Amino acid sequence: MPVVKVDLPQRAYQIHIGPDMLSRACQLMTDLELHGRALLLSNRKVYRLYGGRTRAVLEKHYSVYPYLIGDGERYKSLHTVEKVLRFLIRNRFERGDTIVALGGGVVGDLAGFAAAVYLRGVNFVQIPTTLLAQVDSSVGGKTAVNDPLGKNLIGSFYQPRLVLADTQTLRTLRQRELLSGLGEIVKYGFIADPQILQTLGKHRQTIAPELIARCCQIKAGIVRADETEKNKRAVLNFGHTIGHALETYTHYRFSHGEAIAIGALAAVYMSILRGHLKYSALDKIQKLYRRLGLPAHTGLRLSADKIYRIIQSDKKVADSRLRMVLLKDIGKPLICPVEYEEIVRALDII
Amino acid sequence: MPVVKVDLPQRAYQIHIGPDMLSRACQLMTDLELHGRALLLSNRKVYRLYGGRTRAVLEKHYSVYPYLIGDGERYKSLHTVEKVLRFLIRNRFERGDTIVALGGGVVGDLAGFAAAVYLRGVNFVQIPTTLLAQVDSSVGGKTAVNDPLGKNLIGSFYQPRLVLADTQTLRTLRQRELLSGLGEIVKYGFIADPQILQTLGKHRQTIAPELIARCCQIKAGIVRADETEKNKRAVLNFGHTIGHALETYTHYRFSHGEAIAIGALAAVYMSILRGHLKYSALDKIQKLYRRLGLPAHTGLRLSADKIYRIIQSDKKVADSRLRMVLLKDIGKPLICPVEYEEIVRALDII
Repeated sequence: MPVVKVDLPQRAYQIHIGPDMLSRACQLMTDLELHGRALLLSNRKVYRLYGGRTRAVLEKHYSVYPYLIGDGERYKSLHTVEKVLRFLIRNRFERGDTIVALGGGVVGDLAGFAAAVYLRGVNFVQIPTTLLAQVDSSVGGKTAVNDPLGKNLIGSFYQPRLVLADTQTLRTLRQRELLSGLGEIVKYGFIADPQILQTLGKHRQTIAPELIARCCQIKAGIVRADETEKNKRAVLNFGHTIGHALETYTHYRFSHGEAIAIGALAAVYMSILRGHLKYSALDKIQKLYRRLGLPAHTGLRLSADKIYRIIQSDKKVADSRLRMVLLKDIGKPLICPVEYEEIVRALDII
Repeated sequence: MPVVKVDLPQRAYQIHIGPDMLSRACQLMTDLELHGRALLLSNRKVYRLYGGRTRAVLEKHYSVYPYLIGDGERYKSLHTVEKVLRFLIRNRFERGDTIVALGGGVVGDLAGFAAAVYLRGVNFVQIPTTLLAQVDSSVGGKTAVNDPLGKNLIGSFYQPRLVLADTQTLRTLRQRELLSGLGEIVKYGFIADPQILQTLGKHRQTIAPELIARCCQIKAGIVRADETEKNKRAVLNFGHTIGHALETYTHYRFSHGEAIAIGALAAVYMSILRGHLKYSALDKIQKLYRRLGLPAHTGLRLSADKIYRIIQSDKKVADSRLRMVLLKDIGKPLICPVEYEEIVRALDII
């Protein structure tokens, strides 16, 4: 089964991907000389499915303390982190102990942030159970919580000691959750590896461990070059400028991956208008989206003004000058300033 | 005027020490290409003395947003951090903006933690105004807040971009605050440089910029070898095991530096009992303490049992085995396991 090495200075770690990875959790953790206690942070829904088994596996070597949060983005708050920290303090967790995150992006981001700030950093192990978390949030060390005024405004860069992506947990995902992950996988195809798009075109139904590994590998390479997001890492935001705006505009009618997929399509169109890509690329991608079940249109008449205002209030707009990730070619990203008019035209096709 | 370079991988910064450093703040910050907004975080007491001037200096180049907290350790809380973060969010601070801490250890620790977690890290500049903060908390990147159940349990390792130690701000310190800093300076003499003790023996009244620089240099060297406190950095805890216990035991009757000075004396005595130091060392140090105005005795009949229990509940006791920093010689620290009986005997002389 594939293993991706994330090779950051002083903080290298591995991502193990495959079916039944859960049962190897204890072994792989003790291989890293993690001992003592483990806080098993999860949400009620995931814990009902996989909590008992994970706990039983970990209890071979660890004193396991389950801590469950509610299901949903609104639990990704400073308030929840504070409750987790109190729990750790009351149970006298020490520097050498470990926080294990079992769940999707919300659980992972929250657990990672708690691990980053408890005693200035304790061990962190991630067991992502959604496709989106496996290909995206398990690489890069971004941890965060939301504030009522905005998403991911409070957080840290903090790397896990180990990531286990058990592909069997994907079976219990709803279709929309799978699509959300597919949206990010498509993104990796656009910014780094056209082969991914071809693979998806052929085998839509099964998400092979190798495909997940390829995405993690691409992200790991980009993160290694720019751990704390000074510059290069920005290519990972392909599709996100317009995608995020659509999420806000539609009050999250689209899942994250769906919104990103549409945003990616808009960015592809902008690249075509600049003459970087052939017009036929658009057609091919729309066909791929249909095959995968990803939306190629919002089905809405979008107000360009409103979308542009949302984009500008986004924190990614440094110095009020709008920059976006476009494509020189499929697999070759390009960060460049864009004009209001280009956005207006791109909205036409989505 | 002395400049100490703290040479950490990827995050080097300088400490500038001397009279009237405040007036150079703007120049030194723009030299680092810091632009945009500056949150000037301080407490009411310090701001009354130095806030107006600092603000005027910074306003030559920055939009300055003052944010004042109350004076005292109880404001070093997650609750205060949350209020600071809300203020940053409401005023739309961005990645490239800066948090400037003007004050002692509480302001520095709190501001540093806020800088570490806002947008996963913004620029942080420290202007420590107490002797303790200048020689101790401005080097090492330890940021933290307290929890009702314990001190510094929540925090990050986060390095400032720049530290300015203005020695003129020391003039408005009360005698006890000066003594608190002196306690830490004495510690550097014990663990790294006997010359410091000799200098203090001669010139008690003036704290020269060079003396502060020497302490920062020593700490920077130790931190560089062990940034996230895995091992070597533990020598900085010389005097702290018993010192912290005394703070708790006496409900903070002693200032931090005073408690550490007494703890250091106990550790010196333990080193004598092990045959590492001559008995005459104790006499010399007690004389130095008297000269400096540092306490050499608690003036209390200490219960060894109670002190030991407090030490054991301290987070620094890994795996329940008590280790302390003793001395092979003045200037040569040694981390080693110690027995209950050694502590009992050491309490005799303090």
